[in-house]
Amino acid sequence: MTTIRDVAKHAQVSVATVSRVLNQKGYVSKQAEEAVLAAIKELDFRPNAVARTLYNKSSRMIGLILPDITNPFFPELARAVEDIALTYGYTVVLCNADEDIKKERNYLEALKQKYVDGIILTTNQLSFAEVDKVGVPMVALDRIIGDQIPTVVSANKEGAEMATTHLIESGCKFIAHLRGPKGLATADDRLHGFRKVVEKAGVASIVGEADFYFEKSEQVTRDLLEQHPSIDGIFASSDVTAAGAMKAVNRMGKRVPEDIQIIGYDGIPFGEMLVPSLTTIAQPIYEMGATAARLLIKLIEKKPIEGSYFELSTNLIVRETTKRKEEIE
Amino acid sequence: MTTIRDVAKHAQVSVATVSRVLNQKGYVSKQAEEAVLAAIKELDFRPNAVARTLYNKSSRMIGLILPDITNPFFPELARAVEDIALTYGYTVVLCNADEDIKKERNYLEALKQKYVDGIILTTNQLSFAEVDKVGVPMVALDRIIGDQIPTVVSANKEGAEMATTHLIESGCKFIAHLRGPKGLATADDRLHGFRKVVEKAGVASIVGEADFYFEKSEQVTRDLLEQHPSIDGIFASSDVTAAGAMKAVNRMGKRVPEDIQIIGYDGIPFGEMLVPSLTTIAQPIYEMGATAARLLIKLIEKKPIEGSYFELSTNLIVRETTKRKEEIE
Repeated sequence: MTTIRDVAKHAQVSVATVSRVLNQKGYVSKQAEEAVLAAIKELDFRPNAVARTLYNKSSRMIGLILPDITNPFFPELARAVEDIALTYGYTVVLCNADEDIKKERNYLEALKQKYVDGIILTTNQLSFAEVDKVGVPMVALDRIIGDQIPTVVSANKEGAEMATTHLIESGCKFIAHLRGPKGLATADDRLHGFRKVVEKAGVASIVGEADFYFEKSEQVTRDLLEQHPSIDGIFASSDVTAAGAMKAVNRMGKRVPEDIQIIGYDGIPFGEMLVPSLTTIAQPIYEMGATAARLLIKLIEKKPIEGSYFELSTNLIVRETTKRKEEIE
Repeated sequence: MTTIRDVAKHAQVSVATVSRVLNQKGYVSKQAEEAVLAAIKELDFRPNAVARTLYNKSSRMIGLILPDITNPFFPELARAVEDIALTYGYTVVLCNADEDIKKERNYLEALKQKYVDGIILTTNQLSFAEVDKVGVPMVALDRIIGDQIPTVVSANKEGAEMATTHLIESGCKFIAHLRGPKGLATADDRLHGFRKVVEKAGVASIVGEADFYFEKSEQVTRDLLEQHPSIDGIFASSDVTAAGAMKAVNRMGKRVPEDIQIIGYDGIPFGEMLVPSLTTIAQPIYEMGATAARLLIKLIEKKPIEGSYFELSTNLIVRETTKRKEEIE
């Protein structure tokens, strides 16, 4: 195997010079740099990533901690993070915390041990203090952990307002909101957007706690509809939650959208696969993941960033679970 | 920060002895080992993962290369691999190749550079020769790359036979199979299972190429049904493919299962979320991922393995896209 010594010998420079070229640290003359690069090419020298990690305390690895890899929203996000990271020469270590704070802590420790250069968090059970201890740059994605951690989210309140307005414009008179987990800023913001619109419009409303789980959503929807048979619209806080609501409505012998209109939130491809296909508020998922990755890499490389809070716009996608204009009575 | 020197001093042994204990290599007296372990505990010493990697040429990391993270089958597999790996103290580096052979090659190189201890491949575009060059243990999961690489798959042919038999027993007279990608052993095996049963039963059949993609499946199903309006059963080679078929049937104004019965293959939670919920052949997804992870770790740790080809049984799950006994004419 070619070593750094072979490269130095071939380029007729010292090992220290080769090291400076490899790590882009310290002064190297243009002539020496060219000789080293030529030697690296001729000898097909591949610097040992682990040795470089030890020297630089940098691994060119990014940790991405996800709350639930089986919710298709997160693999979509992960794909974007990975795409951008690869472009800049970083590898992504994907960690699925399964909504378990112990697993989140284990991952933080493991990532620290491996000298990852930075971490993207899409979980929020950990406190800022715990996260800060790792001592590497962090970005919060689709979660808000604290002012101190740069954050990328979608405009959740505005998105929820758009969803609720769409249901009202489609003729709904009694709207249920299936909210996400309490204390989760993104879910709380969606609830606030919903409340603002129904209160302003004077439309009857009710809120159920579905978290982001399909089974729970199906159960909660069934309970709500049994207690309030006049509910004719549902705004679900995620697309998976919306699928649970659709299932419940269908099992109760009611029709979507004729009897009950449903709108989701996320815009994952999954919504298109449902029958009828799901009307939803699309988050710019790829852009969110890409923005977070670019932001983190800038922080890692100590480059200036243009802000520390990025709120990306959402988009109403009307499909088949809400009525078309001509169908509204 | 506590160093290996501090541990040696505290335990009153040499640094070399501490190193031997940490790496479980070479002779250490029981007394010395106990002293070192006690010192490690008292001083809360955490060996530097990167330094250990360099010494051992081992990183306690496993690479998992996935073909398409947005197909929910793969996150389910990844979760199982990760669970088992963590239990044994390994971190999983997840690599999404997006069905792109260039990305697969880049990942192989990146994983090699990071001294991963082993790789699990669920892609099969790379040849055995390319994969072998990395020089670490490998396991093929849900894919067959060659006799030389230990393999974990489900019993694809038997599963396909079960699916086709179920459609025939449910009254289907003309069955379409939406096959997976050509040359992919798992997809080919499912096709063979399908052919064997329709030929033996003398039932009319046709095969469409849907790969494993929703949109392609929707299009292919539409084409098949337009050309052959008497098709009354569809065996799809994956659950996502089945969802595409359901969408096409629905868009053409036909009903599932009354007009056309559909069965999928995979058994991902997604199938349960569809309306009507999807009858399918469930692969033991978690068990497959767990088996592959355990097998790889045994290979890494040079422990004996019980075989190099593991074919796990599948299971028919009857839901709502096929008819119940009392509905069959």
